[in-house]
Amino acid sequence: MEELIYKLRDFAKERDWEQFHSPKNLAMALSVEAAEIVELFQWMTEEQSKNLSKEKIEKLKEEIGDVMIYLTKLADKFGIEPLQAAKEKLKINEKKYPAGLVKGKAKKYNEY
Amino acid sequence: MEELIYKLRDFAKERDWEQFHSPKNLAMALSVEAAEIVELFQWMTEEQSKNLSKEKIEKLKEEIGDVMIYLTKLADKFGIEPLQAAKEKLKINEKKYPAGLVKGKAKKYNEY
Amino acid sequence: MEELIYKLRDFAKERDWEQFHSPKNLAMALSVEAAEIVELFQWMTEEQSKNLSKEKIEKLKEEIGDVMIYLTKLADKFGIEPLQAAKEKLKINEKKYPAGLVKGKAKKYNEY
Amino acid sequence: MEELIYKLRDFAKERDWEQFHSPKNLAMALSVEAAEIVELFQWMTEEQSKNLSKEKIEKLKEEIGDVMIYLTKLADKFGIEPLQAAKEKLKINEKKYPAGLVKGKAKKYNEY
Repeated sequence: MEELIYKLRDFAKERDWEQFHSPKNLAMALSVEAAEIVELFQWMTEEQSKNLSKEKIEKLKEEIGDVMIYLTKLADKFGIEPLQAAKEKLKINEKKYPAGLVKGKAKKYNEY
Repeated sequence: MEELIYKLRDFAKERDWEQFHSPKNLAMALSVEAAEIVELFQWMTEEQSKNLSKEKIEKLKEEIGDVMIYLTKLADKFGIEPLQAAKEKLKINEKKYPAGLVKGKAKKYNEY
Repeated sequence: MEELIYKLRDFAKERDWEQFHSPKNLAMALSVEAAEIVELFQWMTEEQSKNLSKEKIEKLKEEIGDVMIYLTKLADKFGIEPLQAAKEKLKINEKKYPAGLVKGKAKKYNEY
Repeated sequence: MEELIYKLRDFAKERDWEQFHSPKNLAMALSVEAAEIVELFQWMTEEQSKNLSKEKIEKLKEEIGDVMIYLTKLADKFGIEPLQAAKEKLKINEKKYPAGLVKGKAKKYNEY
């Protein structure tokens, strides 16, 4: 993770692109990349989305890379580490949605 | 990274939630979480977005955790590792946008 | 349509909110509202999404209203009329996807 | 508005595309098109976003057309009329954000 963070800092510095990378702009870029992932799946059925062709998986991998890049850059602006943030959020979710209570239900716990 | 992947698998299995986690649905959830990050910044100026209050940073950290969770889950369905995907994408970008050519320009290299 | 445009102008002027409504910010707000619609459907199957409860339809109606509001405001900044834009785009699509060629296919014409 | 609704119904019927147009899929398509609008503005400053070139305005018009098309199609599935929904939502907003209370403030009324 640190390696990616440092590489991303260098990449932007070498191109003098930090001026464009305000948190606001990075958030926009993140959502645009997330939408490109949605675009891959939008006309597929759920079943089809489980069985992608090799080319689609390659395309998906690139888009996942893009999301990860902008997520890491945005997080880095505030000293946040995405992996760490995910682990902490998962702990919150474990309390919010106790396994015994929500088993097999799509609805979120607090909607009951 | 592996630790998060395994924890996410267990989390869904214990709740019998894998049935809802088709790649299509995970892509949707990812974009919804990305939009929640955008929502944090939408009425701020770029300058304001650089100076978040402690509460906003805490909120942002949770949202970053959510994006990371869905990104990792989606990637895991296809044996993709987000960190690895980001590093590979960064290499592609280094070739696509050579530092010498694009320095200080917002426009992308291939739009010139 | 004109009625809505004028009402939206008055609404922002009375609140001195035009300062926040740069096209960039309106585009962000539009995408956030679109994501709130996605959120309504994200864990449903396609079948379930066709059979919403009365409350969900009421909620959806509000979200559709929000998207329409930001779309109209953004369009108004450039003298664009959303309904007119839709009709013109539909004409483009009719040429791009001739009925005879694409019948029953999810893939877009230019992907064949 | 009715004219657009009927034309969209015919367009999908002639291509046998209704099978792909579940509300869930239409919601996804709507958000993808909204993201394409965000993409136009993502690296611009707010000032730049107010002064688009003729080509960018033409591009924006097409994207606004796309959003309007999917919004209208989705709404039509539930007998919702987007213009009407916007007017009703505007009335709700007028009560939620009284002009006297929120004048010139970016924060929403209920965050005070």
